[in-house]
Amino acid sequence: MADRRFFRLAGSFELGHLAGLTGSTLSDPSRAGVKITDVAPLDIAEREHLSFLDNKKYIETFRSTKAAACFVRPELAALAPEGTVCLVNRNPYKAYAIAAAAFYPAEKPKAVRAASAAVHETAIIGEDCTIEEGAVIGANVRIGARCRVQAHAVIREGVEIGDDCDIGAHVTISHALVGSKVRIYPGACIGRQGFGFAIDAAGFTAVPQLGRVLIESDVEIGANTTIDRGAGPDTVIGQGTRIDNLVQIGHNVKIGKYCIIVAQVGISGSTQIGDFAMLGGQAGLAGHIKIGSGAKVAAQSGITRDVGAGEEVMGSPAVPLRQSMRQAAVLAKLALKKKGSEE
Amino acid sequence: MADRRFFRLAGSFELGHLAGLTGSTLSDPSRAGVKITDVAPLDIAEREHLSFLDNKKYIETFRSTKAAACFVRPELAALAPEGTVCLVNRNPYKAYAIAAAAFYPAEKPKAVRAASAAVHETAIIGEDCTIEEGAVIGANVRIGARCRVQAHAVIREGVEIGDDCDIGAHVTISHALVGSKVRIYPGACIGRQGFGFAIDAAGFTAVPQLGRVLIESDVEIGANTTIDRGAGPDTVIGQGTRIDNLVQIGHNVKIGKYCIIVAQVGISGSTQIGDFAMLGGQAGLAGHIKIGSGAKVAAQSGITRDVGAGEEVMGSPAVPLRQSMRQAAVLAKLALKKKGSEE
Amino acid sequence: MADRRFFRLAGSFELGHLAGLTGSTLSDPSRAGVKITDVAPLDIAEREHLSFLDNKKYIETFRSTKAAACFVRPELAALAPEGTVCLVNRNPYKAYAIAAAAFYPAEKPKAVRAASAAVHETAIIGEDCTIEEGAVIGANVRIGARCRVQAHAVIREGVEIGDDCDIGAHVTISHALVGSKVRIYPGACIGRQGFGFAIDAAGFTAVPQLGRVLIESDVEIGANTTIDRGAGPDTVIGQGTRIDNLVQIGHNVKIGKYCIIVAQVGISGSTQIGDFAMLGGQAGLAGHIKIGSGAKVAAQSGITRDVGAGEEVMGSPAVPLRQSMRQAAVLAKLALKKKGSEE
Repeated sequence: MADRRFFRLAGSFELGHLAGLTGSTLSDPSRAGVKITDVAPLDIAEREHLSFLDNKKYIETFRSTKAAACFVRPELAALAPEGTVCLVNRNPYKAYAIAAAAFYPAEKPKAVRAASAAVHETAIIGEDCTIEEGAVIGANVRIGARCRVQAHAVIREGVEIGDDCDIGAHVTISHALVGSKVRIYPGACIGRQGFGFAIDAAGFTAVPQLGRVLIESDVEIGANTTIDRGAGPDTVIGQGTRIDNLVQIGHNVKIGKYCIIVAQVGISGSTQIGDFAMLGGQAGLAGHIKIGSGAKVAAQSGITRDVGAGEEVMGSPAVPLRQSMRQAAVLAKLALKKKGSEE
Repeated sequence: MADRRFFRLAGSFELGHLAGLTGSTLSDPSRAGVKITDVAPLDIAEREHLSFLDNKKYIETFRSTKAAACFVRPELAALAPEGTVCLVNRNPYKAYAIAAAAFYPAEKPKAVRAASAAVHETAIIGEDCTIEEGAVIGANVRIGARCRVQAHAVIREGVEIGDDCDIGAHVTISHALVGSKVRIYPGACIGRQGFGFAIDAAGFTAVPQLGRVLIESDVEIGANTTIDRGAGPDTVIGQGTRIDNLVQIGHNVKIGKYCIIVAQVGISGSTQIGDFAMLGGQAGLAGHIKIGSGAKVAAQSGITRDVGAGEEVMGSPAVPLRQSMRQAAVLAKLALKKKGSEE
Repeated sequence: MADRRFFRLAGSFELGHLAGLTGSTLSDPSRAGVKITDVAPLDIAEREHLSFLDNKKYIETFRSTKAAACFVRPELAALAPEGTVCLVNRNPYKAYAIAAAAFYPAEKPKAVRAASAAVHETAIIGEDCTIEEGAVIGANVRIGARCRVQAHAVIREGVEIGDDCDIGAHVTISHALVGSKVRIYPGACIGRQGFGFAIDAAGFTAVPQLGRVLIESDVEIGANTTIDRGAGPDTVIGQGTRIDNLVQIGHNVKIGKYCIIVAQVGISGSTQIGDFAMLGGQAGLAGHIKIGSGAKVAAQSGITRDVGAGEEVMGSPAVPLRQSMRQAAVLAKLALKKKGSEE
């Protein structure tokens, strides 16, 4: 179903192959030879398509899907409509991801360098890299193998980038060391000097920002996100962490491994975040605080103090999740009383 | 009054002409022949200028304006200072908009193609388009007539754009079909893959994002705004919708027609918004919810559940507008009591 | 300690020289001849390094630092470890800033113009300017001396820029007059037309945006920040003001001198802010309101009414700081009661 103008379908697969590929169990093994021609969402899937059910909000859509087959959790397989074979899997979203990548494998860039790219003579570019139109690569930059530097990206002097990275259009990177398999989306700005100045009656005095940005491998950084370099210490983004669009990360911030930072989050300077933490969209974190490993910060929360490992917090100022819900309930009740007394 | 370095004045107009053009009534018809040389804000307007009063906050400024004439609602016309003719109109802001556009008509781009633009040989560009310096237009792109593709904009393979569109500097567009009369401001990123990955103990597995961004006609998209493409379904922006700067729109989001999305709003994946909805600045919407037509979401609200058609909500978590105001009042009162008991 | 790939160390200095340069007093004047080779954060400083203690959160780190010398406030000097000489100063952060700038002075750009820059024949560029790859400079633009226009920046027709400015990569500037010593970081968009349209049953009518953006001297504007031009009045950023990343400033906004606007703040149209005001991260301000000089708006606050000079406010909707804290305390207590009654 994917638009052929944008996506290349790699082929068809038999259900049995897809079950094997994804570690799924067929609800009807006799249909292992059925040919699947594409993936599609539940509501628009047609007879030869493969879909998935992950969010329970879509159970009704699942019940009426025309998909030939569907990834689904064991406990929901019984709800499948007749004619839809279930590929039963404890993580149907992941199974779908694997299958969809078989139908639509990532395309290799063509390993060409645009004539309009400005690559400094001292820069070292690995093999099979693609350097697009207008890209600017400064002195002593090192870029690993199979990277793509998209149009107009600007990579400043001394930056080092590992293998298999994708640097989006209009990205600016300076003062940074970047691992392998890092994807940076368009417009992100990595390594500008942090928002650091001393204040007194004479005004502001800029504090030289002498640190770097260290981005470990397999990190993803969203479009128009900004990550300031350290002031002396480094700003660090841990391995595997996913950062969404329009996020602000201040100087000296340390983010652990495999964190999820949703769009428009702001993290003030020198704050430290443990591994596997999740920050909901638009959450704001004060500076110089610590967020423990596995902590979950709800969307729009305002964090002004340390959050312990595994804690879930919500609100602005943030409190433990349950307290936040109780506060909302109490407040609603009081407002209702007030309304009653007014009438 | 507009700075001649940036704006070209098209000429002078008689009051009678301006009244006719905007459907306004002159408070003093004998002055229909008065010549107006320019438009200007109330406080700096001079004797031959035309101004407007829309927001009641500026009534005092209106009372002392030196403007020769002023668009104003019927009920406020009596407050005009002597010497200022009123152009009475139920929608003075719109009337001013029409008049100002007569004084300062939008300039046509010059329909030239910069030598430094990189236009793929298979791209089809309509007549009278302007393609500025460094623009990159990929394979099989189709662009309608009279479009302007500003400096360094990057339009990826297969994208289709209608007539009379304006694509700002440093914009990136991929996986998108764009209608006519669409204006996209600098730095916006349209069509990056959404923030989608399956999570398990092994880490994150990227889910191929196989949908598109569909932007209907007459849409406006603000600077540095990010709109992710669908994951399978499409991300859709309905006709006429106005999106401000720094807004984040996640994958699969459907926005209806003529919505107003103020700056820094964040809309999570798969959420649906009806026609004529208004989202105040910095509002955040959770994923997989529905906002009814004509709903109004106050600035900074956090929306975690469906909002009905025409409902007005406020707060984080959001509640109906009146309840939100009552909650604020109750809370202020309790805090005052606490203060009293502390003293 | 700064990474030599990114920073050039200018030399070593004796302690006595650094004390004089920064107006500090040596805790042990006999050590004025000690040679300092570099600056470094407290925790990683080594024997010949200079550090500073500003935030009391780091007192324990100070007690165990190996730094040869440290800027510190008078009342904390006694806590220095043996072997660390104190440079006593009432503003250790500023003193450090001055010293660090001695070790790492800002580098002068090389005053070259890239062949790929597109400079209009009518533009006037001052002496010793650096114009980088792909920069686009329009008709009648005037740029002062010693400016740097970074790669792919786009400066539109008629814009004027003073001396010693730094315009970042991918910045877009139109309809603007910019003072001297202004620094604009990558991706900022200055001067787009504001979010202005009249609304009626027929839809939206664009209101011509005929004002400018006036940026006074010594202003700093963060990465991917957006500043809309005035609608008729101008948008004004006062001298010395520091604006962080991803900030949105609407049309007609007036910001006073030496304000601090932290990341992701949003300021709606026509709002006025006095001198020396501070807006915390993610704060949102409604339109047409006034914030007095020296006011402090806490992070994430939502401001819907005027704030008096020197007032401190917090919350959404914002209330005076102490009231906000009392409200949070009252609410927490009520939630605790509710919890008790549930158990």
